Amino acid sequence: MGLILVRYGEIGIKGKNRMEFVRRLRRNMRDALKRRGVAGRVWSEGQRVYAETDQVAEALEALRHVFGIVSLSPVVEVPPDLEAMKAEAVRQALAAGLGPGRSYHIAARRADKTFPLTSPEINRVLGAAVQEATGARVDLSDAADVVIGVEVQRERVLLYGGVVPGWGGMPVLSQGRVVALLSGGIDSPVAAWLMMKRGCGVIPVHFYQNETEKAKVLDLCARLQDFSAGFAIRPVIVDHGEVLGDLPQRLRALGQERWTCILCKRAMLQKASEIARDLGASAIVLGDSLGQVASQTLENMRVISHGLDALVLRPLVGYDKAEVVALARRIGTYDISTRAAEGCRFLPPNPLTRASLEGLRRVLEDLGETPPSPWAVGDAA
Amino acid sequence: MGLILVRYGEIGIKGKNRMEFVRRLRRNMRDALKRRGVAGRVWSEGQRVYAETDQVAEALEALRHVFGIVSLSPVVEVPPDLEAMKAEAVRQALAAGLGPGRSYHIAARRADKTFPLTSPEINRVLGAAVQEATGARVDLSDAADVVIGVEVQRERVLLYGGVVPGWGGMPVLSQGRVVALLSGGIDSPVAAWLMMKRGCGVIPVHFYQNETEKAKVLDLCARLQDFSAGFAIRPVIVDHGEVLGDLPQRLRALGQERWTCILCKRAMLQKASEIARDLGASAIVLGDSLGQVASQTLENMRVISHGLDALVLRPLVGYDKAEVVALARRIGTYDISTRAAEGCRFLPPNPLTRASLEGLRRVLEDLGETPPSPWAVGDAA
Repeated sequence: MGLILVRYGEIGIKGKNRMEFVRRLRRNMRDALKRRGVAGRVWSEGQRVYAETDQVAEALEALRHVFGIVSLSPVVEVPPDLEAMKAEAVRQALAAGLGPGRSYHIAARRADKTFPLTSPEINRVLGAAVQEATGARVDLSDAADVVIGVEVQRERVLLYGGVVPGWGGMPVLSQGRVVALLSGGIDSPVAAWLMMKRGCGVIPVHFYQNETEKAKVLDLCARLQDFSAGFAIRPVIVDHGEVLGDLPQRLRALGQERWTCILCKRAMLQKASEIARDLGASAIVLGDSLGQVASQTLENMRVISHGLDALVLRPLVGYDKAEVVALARRIGTYDISTRAAEGCRFLPPNPLTRASLEGLRRVLEDLGETPPSPWAVGDAA
Repeated sequence: MGLILVRYGEIGIKGKNRMEFVRRLRRNMRDALKRRGVAGRVWSEGQRVYAETDQVAEALEALRHVFGIVSLSPVVEVPPDLEAMKAEAVRQALAAGLGPGRSYHIAARRADKTFPLTSPEINRVLGAAVQEATGARVDLSDAADVVIGVEVQRERVLLYGGVVPGWGGMPVLSQGRVVALLSGGIDSPVAAWLMMKRGCGVIPVHFYQNETEKAKVLDLCARLQDFSAGFAIRPVIVDHGEVLGDLPQRLRALGQERWTCILCKRAMLQKASEIARDLGASAIVLGDSLGQVASQTLENMRVISHGLDALVLRPLVGYDKAEVVALARRIGTYDISTRAAEGCRFLPPNPLTRASLEGLRRVLEDLGETPPSPWAVGDAA
């Protein structure tokens, strides 16, 4: 059986929240293994979480996508005996390719204080053995080529040379649920992913116009699912035309076509807000970034979500396009989002780029609608 | 006189917006030079912006903080003559430390199509000269140690070997103004900085409780000013106690002390919203990140900004604490934010971590206040 040590960590997590965090993390890790068909056991001990499995490589691949995990290391267990520890440290140093011209250090942690050597002493003794065997030089900084970790526990010692980075963040569902508008473009899946990383179970909502975009959305959801062990991603597909009704025609009749996009987005948010309430979600996530396209202005953002019952989150608002693209590539959504696209069929010739609240009030009046009050609807939860 | 070539770029900027973008960029660059006491001239030609000055090093230091700039290069001007170009390419290659074992390539761009050689031909001829002089090897990828840029214009050729990275983003003020709550902590200045990067003129608002935090806020503003050429950062200091009035006492009398933080934040947002309206700002920027502390839950965020007139932006909502800290270090606010702090004197023993809208409605009722309507107040702009 192979053992994997899992490091989690978020500054400021303590007490009751920490227990909930770790409980949720273990649960999501178990689901991640199960989704890949990996048999294994997950448990926590002190400040660490462990996974034990026969399929270490597959388990690492599944677990490194679980949010809340900072890094993982396959570990080897030896008895709390200095000779056994030295031998294993040397074996791992050689396996990591350590030799003359390369650098290393030993990082011991003594959970069991009855062990006869202190952590600095363990570092020294094991370090000398590694130096003799490899001819590598000691570098106590983070820049060392290889760091061999040693955890001295009561009845065993764990050694590890390799570190697989995780994505950090918080375990999915530890922060509740959100609804995320998903369009098939580059931005919205990245926004949804960021909220997953911060511990949200994400419910994607897609406003259907054509099969091209819908197919992209379904593929994006499958990709996002890789990061959402513990919460099944089930997209809600809503017919775009049904949500809009005769709004485009009525606006045309009023000579107010330029308002189409803004009122369309308000209608989508209104619908998303109802879905959020029905499914126990606390917020709506948008892929908006400021100034990326002509219509993404502060004024338009304000008018689009004004008076809405739900909390609206725009995690990309401070991102450059190049940063969103880089992140989309890293998380594997970019290639799906950039497949051939079909544009929106309701797009008017000259959409408003700087709408005003006063204008919104007027156009709603012209349409015979009363401005919604956020107090009328009540709690989502 | 030394010449500096400035590259800007944001995907999707075109037409009228591009002209406005470049006009604002030149203006902010001029202000950046002026603020450092650097005499110089700034103009644009085609897709590039140039700065000319006797103080190239100082100018680079000032300009690299101007948002909208992707990178800068000090350039040398030679006549459109192949021998002169070869000599200058070799000079720059040697100045950049190119030699055997290192790699390079030439990247020519021919704005003047009447020049007798094509861009690939220029690359070849100049590349051969550099190879002969340095013994370095050609690497056409981005990983080359040195890239020598060549811009062939009608009456001159520009050559440059060094590239100073800029921060990207959009020129400050190109996207309007926002109000940013600034507390003296780590998060809020980073949130403000991100919105500056996306083209906002930022008006910091600080709710005064003590001199310790105020001094930090003023130092943070001075640091943020380095990134805000073209818009003077003038913090608005508001007395915290005055905004709160007798709210803490009244809540205590009602046995509802746990609501203090949420109603305090609502009062701050209400005040910030008025300041935004008075100063022509379109949004309020908060340093909230989801789940970073026990009170930063989706539920609390929702209740805090519910029914508010203003647009509320939370650019850090998808950030891990470690990511915020790393960015704070890069932009130079971390050391100021982490100076000795004085806590909030209104903090109750057990602040609510998961407030509900229903609860908010009830406590406002108990306080004899009517829930505010976002439609009552009208336009900010």
